[in-house]
Amino acid sequence: MKIKNDLLLRAHNGESLERYPVWIMRQAGRILPEYRIVRSKLSGFKELVETPEFAAEVTIQPVDLLDVDAAIIFSDILVVPEAMGLPYQMIEQKGPWFENTIRSNEELSYLDTIIDVEDRLSYVFEAIKLTKIALDSRVPLIGFAGAPWTVFCYMVEGKGSKTFSESRKLLYTNPVFAHELLSRITDVTIRYMKAQVSAGADALQLFDSWAGILGTEQYREFGLNYIEKIVAAFPNFPFTVFSKGALASLPEIAALNCSTLGLDWNMSIEETRKLVGETKTLQGNLDPCVLYGSDESIKKETIKMLKSFKSQRHIVNLGHGVYPDIDPEKVKVFIQTVKNYEN
Amino acid sequence: MKIKNDLLLRAHNGESLERYPVWIMRQAGRILPEYRIVRSKLSGFKELVETPEFAAEVTIQPVDLLDVDAAIIFSDILVVPEAMGLPYQMIEQKGPWFENTIRSNEELSYLDTIIDVEDRLSYVFEAIKLTKIALDSRVPLIGFAGAPWTVFCYMVEGKGSKTFSESRKLLYTNPVFAHELLSRITDVTIRYMKAQVSAGADALQLFDSWAGILGTEQYREFGLNYIEKIVAAFPNFPFTVFSKGALASLPEIAALNCSTLGLDWNMSIEETRKLVGETKTLQGNLDPCVLYGSDESIKKETIKMLKSFKSQRHIVNLGHGVYPDIDPEKVKVFIQTVKNYEN
Repeated sequence: MKIKNDLLLRAHNGESLERYPVWIMRQAGRILPEYRIVRSKLSGFKELVETPEFAAEVTIQPVDLLDVDAAIIFSDILVVPEAMGLPYQMIEQKGPWFENTIRSNEELSYLDTIIDVEDRLSYVFEAIKLTKIALDSRVPLIGFAGAPWTVFCYMVEGKGSKTFSESRKLLYTNPVFAHELLSRITDVTIRYMKAQVSAGADALQLFDSWAGILGTEQYREFGLNYIEKIVAAFPNFPFTVFSKGALASLPEIAALNCSTLGLDWNMSIEETRKLVGETKTLQGNLDPCVLYGSDESIKKETIKMLKSFKSQRHIVNLGHGVYPDIDPEKVKVFIQTVKNYEN
Repeated sequence: MKIKNDLLLRAHNGESLERYPVWIMRQAGRILPEYRIVRSKLSGFKELVETPEFAAEVTIQPVDLLDVDAAIIFSDILVVPEAMGLPYQMIEQKGPWFENTIRSNEELSYLDTIIDVEDRLSYVFEAIKLTKIALDSRVPLIGFAGAPWTVFCYMVEGKGSKTFSESRKLLYTNPVFAHELLSRITDVTIRYMKAQVSAGADALQLFDSWAGILGTEQYREFGLNYIEKIVAAFPNFPFTVFSKGALASLPEIAALNCSTLGLDWNMSIEETRKLVGETKTLQGNLDPCVLYGSDESIKKETIKMLKSFKSQRHIVNLGHGVYPDIDPEKVKVFIQTVKNYEN
């Protein structure tokens, strides 16, 4: 069925737009009181992720409440390692935690070798199906996954890290192991994202949150190589690669065969446009801290960003996920400014 | 008195060198068993920083044990906010913590307005004097401070942070306050670094650890503006600015009137050399994770970096502080590889 507001999809395809589409990373979640009500009924974050009815409900909330031009399925990038046999917990105020970590060939045995992705991640696909029904073709639904390098970091460290030195150490001490684990993650990720599309996802995004901690050579070898494989599995599909912090690798990221690049707020729209010409859509990149400012200052900064666009090929977003203590009213000011902007 | 091994100073000045000088960030500290012996006798990190005899002892250890070409005074960037009236604690396994934070004009009143830097930081100057005596002109001694933006972040957040969103928020919501606090930090930092030179520091380094979280415009306004003021106070003095993560701002950093730029391991030596020509010395930038590898791989990666140098104006270092669990023997392999390298 034809999506009524298909601005996002047309932006991915480089088609002409009457205005720029806008959504925000982490729009489904912590900032909305309506989300917190749903969340408070449940035992925790994971129950929400794993219960399709609730995941669908919070996925749709920002479409209804914030008037964004796309929904993104409420889930977590760590469902992939869990599907591989490495369960995680989400600890309040602290973040993700894995009981086991994978740092050697021997520890690869903690992982399952035969993985029925359709079955293990059925709750995600079910949530996508329910969301599609409830959205009733109003806006596109985005599916997503973590990029292999970022997922690798969590599987190696077992939690967040300032330096990710355990992960980076392995690139020097045991690159064969690193490639083996990255290959396995890549394989599951491709199957996972394909199943998201089968379930109804209209666009996909790969989040490489820790791209920026690698130098360009290592990011090519251990990051982009695997992203390339994933992207190759989705030819001509609306696909965004968001390599946060990987400014030095932008020329190589720009060469990926995906429709859209996500930019963080330290990446220059103008410079990136020079690099990609009209071959790519750019997504981003307002500093999420702008939303702490006054309405006037949010409008000013948003318009400044919009004026820097010299092409139609843009999807407006923040340069990172919205911070949890942002007032949803401020988010609305941002979204309405984009919608009212006359190009 | 003439310093016997003055390679570091000649590198700063762009003079000819028989080989590249080498030292490593955080060389005085956690990696050395000899350091941990001194540390174990004391109540904590702060007692070590504040006791000149011990601070001098651990400052000299890497010169004796690792054979580096420079000493750097053992201290902490947070002595500056403490001298301003905002005491900190260093919590084991966690990092720095401030009881009070400064987030508004009202909270500026927590800070002292009349600050006798010579007196409040006398323990640092005393440590420098003792170190100089014990070094007996073998190698130069580096003094240092945190750049105003990084110190500002700690004073605002009160501790480390993943996003530093409280600090960045203020740049949008109260830029006047931000400039006031940054100006005060800058003023104390200039006086602090001048007193370090008077006490005997032969070179200076400014650490801007959180430079990379700002976009280029904000880094110019809230970061580089103040670094420029500090640098201007030390004309023709060996001075390194290390703006970690600020890749996008390198063209502007390169325009600073200092002798040397510190590069992190994500910054390209070749690209930066193109930018600065022969006007600057470059310091860095081996990925600290290389030191987890085998001796062979450390040699290989070090030589690869050295071969990328197309100029004499280099000081070899890591691209970030050495990680605490690195074997000092591995550090020696790195240092000896640099020393044995025939240009």
